[in-house]
Amino acid sequence: MTEVSRTDDSFHVFDTTLRDGAQREGINLTVADKLAIARHLDEFGVGFIEGGWPGANPRDTEFFARAAAELELRTAQLVAFGATRRAGGKAAEDPQLAALVASGAPVVTLVAKSHDRHVELALRTTLDENLEMVRDSVEFLRAQGRRVFLDCEHFFDGYRANREYALAVVRTAHRAGADVVVLCDTNGGMLPAGVRDTVADVIAATGARIGIHAQDDTGCAVANTLAAVDAGATHVQCTANGYGERVGNANLFPVVGALELKYDRRVLPEGRLAEMTRISHAIAELVNLAPSTHQPYVGFSAFAHKAGLHASAIKVDPDLYQHTDPELVGNTMRMLVSDMAGRASVELKGKELGYDLSTDRDLAGRVVAKVKQQENLGYTYESADASFELLLRDEVRGSRERFYRLESWRTISEQGPHGVSGNEATVKLWAKGERRIAIGEGNGPVNALDQALRTALEGIYPPLATFELVDYKVRILEGQHGTGSKTRVLIESTDGTATWSTVGVADNVIAASWLALEDAYTYGLIRSGLEPTE
Amino acid sequence: MTEVSRTDDSFHVFDTTLRDGAQREGINLTVADKLAIARHLDEFGVGFIEGGWPGANPRDTEFFARAAAELELRTAQLVAFGATRRAGGKAAEDPQLAALVASGAPVVTLVAKSHDRHVELALRTTLDENLEMVRDSVEFLRAQGRRVFLDCEHFFDGYRANREYALAVVRTAHRAGADVVVLCDTNGGMLPAGVRDTVADVIAATGARIGIHAQDDTGCAVANTLAAVDAGATHVQCTANGYGERVGNANLFPVVGALELKYDRRVLPEGRLAEMTRISHAIAELVNLAPSTHQPYVGFSAFAHKAGLHASAIKVDPDLYQHTDPELVGNTMRMLVSDMAGRASVELKGKELGYDLSTDRDLAGRVVAKVKQQENLGYTYESADASFELLLRDEVRGSRERFYRLESWRTISEQGPHGVSGNEATVKLWAKGERRIAIGEGNGPVNALDQALRTALEGIYPPLATFELVDYKVRILEGQHGTGSKTRVLIESTDGTATWSTVGVADNVIAASWLALEDAYTYGLIRSGLEPTE
Repeated sequence: MTEVSRTDDSFHVFDTTLRDGAQREGINLTVADKLAIARHLDEFGVGFIEGGWPGANPRDTEFFARAAAELELRTAQLVAFGATRRAGGKAAEDPQLAALVASGAPVVTLVAKSHDRHVELALRTTLDENLEMVRDSVEFLRAQGRRVFLDCEHFFDGYRANREYALAVVRTAHRAGADVVVLCDTNGGMLPAGVRDTVADVIAATGARIGIHAQDDTGCAVANTLAAVDAGATHVQCTANGYGERVGNANLFPVVGALELKYDRRVLPEGRLAEMTRISHAIAELVNLAPSTHQPYVGFSAFAHKAGLHASAIKVDPDLYQHTDPELVGNTMRMLVSDMAGRASVELKGKELGYDLSTDRDLAGRVVAKVKQQENLGYTYESADASFELLLRDEVRGSRERFYRLESWRTISEQGPHGVSGNEATVKLWAKGERRIAIGEGNGPVNALDQALRTALEGIYPPLATFELVDYKVRILEGQHGTGSKTRVLIESTDGTATWSTVGVADNVIAASWLALEDAYTYGLIRSGLEPTE
Repeated sequence: MTEVSRTDDSFHVFDTTLRDGAQREGINLTVADKLAIARHLDEFGVGFIEGGWPGANPRDTEFFARAAAELELRTAQLVAFGATRRAGGKAAEDPQLAALVASGAPVVTLVAKSHDRHVELALRTTLDENLEMVRDSVEFLRAQGRRVFLDCEHFFDGYRANREYALAVVRTAHRAGADVVVLCDTNGGMLPAGVRDTVADVIAATGARIGIHAQDDTGCAVANTLAAVDAGATHVQCTANGYGERVGNANLFPVVGALELKYDRRVLPEGRLAEMTRISHAIAELVNLAPSTHQPYVGFSAFAHKAGLHASAIKVDPDLYQHTDPELVGNTMRMLVSDMAGRASVELKGKELGYDLSTDRDLAGRVVAKVKQQENLGYTYESADASFELLLRDEVRGSRERFYRLESWRTISEQGPHGVSGNEATVKLWAKGERRIAIGEGNGPVNALDQALRTALEGIYPPLATFELVDYKVRILEGQHGTGSKTRVLIESTDGTATWSTVGVADNVIAASWLALEDAYTYGLIRSGLEPTE
């Protein structure tokens, strides 16, 4: 990609994944993680990346040191976060402000109190001294050549409690030289109408440039952010995938999606929006959380349609059935092969997998019939693309591709007198003309079975060594018959580059798991380019 | 709890979890699941429960038949969903409308096209005939004594494409006797400001009572729903936990939370809001999805505060740091140093089961500590009242009540060369001083284990003969480790008069099932009045 310079300062997309997003329960980032996330955010094209609080903890201090040496940002500017100086002190002598300057970040976000009771209760100082802390701190950083944004913590609650004081904080920061005063809904209790009215009033009353920082406690953080923009805010603080304390922060991706696609406002450099889905998932991997399948714009399910009723109309005009073109955000439309499966939807699904079924109506009909038959047994293919593709290949070839022939399997689980338990499995099969028997142990019978199958095949099919089961789901069907019900197992596998999902249905969890495991190994081996042997 | 009647029809909380929510990728509900979810929704206090589309598939038809016989709703009315009659036909002769009437539901939601291009492309009829279909269908159902709500599919896109036609559909339905005309953002592309303006215009132009049905594709479904209410809508369609097609629907819980706590508008019967967290989680278990930890109001993390900076200030005045009191929605504030189970919730739960823990703070503390320890292991007591009561009794008595002492169990599952499979289990235990060994067979290892335990005990404890397992659910925890993950099993049992739920967690499905089975039998025997023997 070519270098992109962003000289347009009229609207700020400000990311705080590395600072506020990292507050999410369960997230724990290393410096290397933070650097990698910063590169993704820069590639996406945000204007500002808040990297942390230098001086507050060794990790954040190290991040800024390494960022200065290693991080070549093309689009974004790095931002250091800190607080106004101590009550009763001087900004020029405040070690915390000195650490912000020492970080080398060209931009500093200072957090200040703007709610009178927080000043008294948490800061334990006077309202006047808090204003003085704002003025002194902003002026000090401006004198050091830093651009300053001021985060007004608990602004909306403060505005409701004491409007005049909240406005005085904004005015003080503005006059002292803060470029943007950011109104923070720290407790996240606001709704869009209230945000809109408050932002409009603050802009009218102070003339300051206003930003918005919304938390998602009412489920309205994206809407609150947009409501602030509607009222004149020109700086939005967001986090990738909405990570953040409690419920989370305003999610960067739907905010940018709305601004670019609904407001028709260019807030990213040209060509970056199409990276959104990939970058959302990459950041999820880095923070070690599964990407949310149901996230707006970028989720795996965000443009998934149940087949049936509308499939033929979708073929004619997809725009009638989706709010935006998924390719604009790097996502794709998917047809779910559900129990409403008709020929049109199977054809669409086949096309998605690279099979043209529209020219062979007989084949498409056989696939539909087979899907219906399988779904009557309890199979579902909407979450098992790999099993569906195997079914499709069966119908194209007339038979199942096999890498071995099973003779038998067996699992034994037991718990002894002192609570000691164990699981073992044996697998007997024929592959490449050879009979192979193997035993596996595991912390459960399915795990033991997986180990046994792997042991039996690994010497013959080396790609198997890279396969890993990454998710395993069990669903009991027909809840009326207790443990005698049918069981459906979904397995997600990976070879390190791709992931694929398979399904098995049987009277019991072990037999169902076996079927899903077989599909997983068969699909993985076909994917790796091996020829079926049996 | 006492009977609650809802005579106030001025605002409708309309739930469509069982119809539109069930469209979510990966959700596949049995009739028993749907009945159980309906009971939870009724307990929560929604006004309407849309149960499905009778006649469209056998499962929904069966749901309405069984609902009529088995479902005793205290607050909600059951709603059947269907479409306007076929183009060119007569409502009185339409088999689909006949199925709606036959369902016996007192209320019917009819979906109609309101976007001119959808009428032409998907319905393949004229704009006039579509209006006629609306009029005829609504009048027919009204004449059959049904209350009718009309869902205008793709309304907002239709309004933008052809305002006059979209309004004509609303007017036609209103004049034909539809009580509410629901504007659906079917593709989910709307933002709050647009919803507000459109709803206001529709109300002014038609005088109809307006409802809102929002999809979450922009991440604004909750805000869009509230924007419609701001503009005068008095009927909100939501789904539990926001389940629904693609990204999902407007989430019932933050919508109700906002209306009750931010608008100060009573939309639930007195006392039900505090059930919100429990019911959200119970429904998640029923649809077999992990409850979202970051869901507004009801998520495990929704009121979780990172310890540090604010901890002491939070102690002084928690209201400064949370947007609402978590107890109002049945949730608890958590400091993230420890995973708090919450004394208050344990006391409440104990009270519900007939144990007064508020007088014995030491006992309550021990129960909290035990729950916390168990929850760390993966237990959840929200859907396992019987296991919780056993835990409570353990702490009251100081030891577990036992009817036998286990020596060992073992299960063997196997599949032979010709696909013949079998499952057997052995159980060895001591009861009333006697060693008993028994073998069981079943269509799965857990079923075999259940049979073996039953055989070992039945002669000694006759009430066991009436026990039956009616539901069995498996959830894999920590989806990152494949088949090596922890497994949680929930079992629902009955003795023909009462039902009870138990939970077991272990490294594998069989060991977890054994623990849940043990609790199920122990609780059932205590219930039957027998004295523990060991």
